[in-house]
Amino acid sequence: MGVEIERKFRIREPPQWLSECRSAAIDQGYLAIAEDGEEVRLRRIDGSSAVLTVKRGRGEERLEVEIELTDEQFQALWPLTEGRRVEKRRHRVEGDPLIEVDVYSGNLAGLVVAETEFPSVDASHRFDPPDWLGEELTGDDRYANQQLAARGLPTD
Amino acid sequence: MGVEIERKFRIREPPQWLSECRSAAIDQGYLAIAEDGEEVRLRRIDGSSAVLTVKRGRGEERLEVEIELTDEQFQALWPLTEGRRVEKRRHRVEGDPLIEVDVYSGNLAGLVVAETEFPSVDASHRFDPPDWLGEELTGDDRYANQQLAARGLPTD
Repeated sequence: MGVEIERKFRIREPPQWLSECRSAAIDQGYLAIAEDGEEVRLRRIDGSSAVLTVKRGRGEERLEVEIELTDEQFQALWPLTEGRRVEKRRHRVEGDPLIEVDVYSGNLAGLVVAETEFPSVDASHRFDPPDWLGEELTGDDRYANQQLAARGLPTD
Repeated sequence: MGVEIERKFRIREPPQWLSECRSAAIDQGYLAIAEDGEEVRLRRIDGSSAVLTVKRGRGEERLEVEIELTDEQFQALWPLTEGRRVEKRRHRVEGDPLIEVDVYSGNLAGLVVAETEFPSVDASHRFDPPDWLGEELTGDDRYANQQLAARGLPTD
């Protein structure tokens, strides 16, 4: 349980080499999204390993707990996420810092978002993003996965 | 998954014989309570059997799914319900209809609520409540458990 320091970008033209990176298919859906920032999320990776994640609070007070689910538990809960799902393939671009690139499909096809995490605010400021990362989305709540799941792609 | 037809009462003076009824201790807490009626609830009965319940939607569209949790899963999630918990002892008053009487403790000590479920709206209207049930609370959302957990006892 800690504060994540991360920067986020929208990639308009994914580089050719992205498809060669290691990747995993992610299905996630929301059981609840509340106004004060709390959320209860289901996620399944590569169609098997399933987790339930609960987030509560905002900013530095944010708590996050994740538990593994059996396939049976996941299957019982998944129908309740209908209308609030995202599917994407997450690619790991190895380097310093590691960059994760999510290529969305389904309703959000066409959206490609990169995220990178830093150990400190200083390190985050020092990062000089390469051109292929495109425009910065850091702090734009419309691109939070729970918002994408509930409201779809922002019109801008 | 169906619509529950039930009536609810606030018992001001619990009858002496209540303590002789079969009962179970219930701890429940909310992981999320959202404005559109959805909730994600943890419940543990007699300190062992644990379930996660997700409700979504309102009225006739309301979906409800419950899964059993292992003790380990329950223990990991329970801290996130802090500040949104109720503890109560549920008594079964056998008869036709069966009446369940919840005697709250902790923050809600002093509150005693009876609920009874009916197979049809007609049966619900035909039910002539005995005096000990006290004032009717049916339809008073302030006495919903999620509201009691989040806001405490209504001041009326």
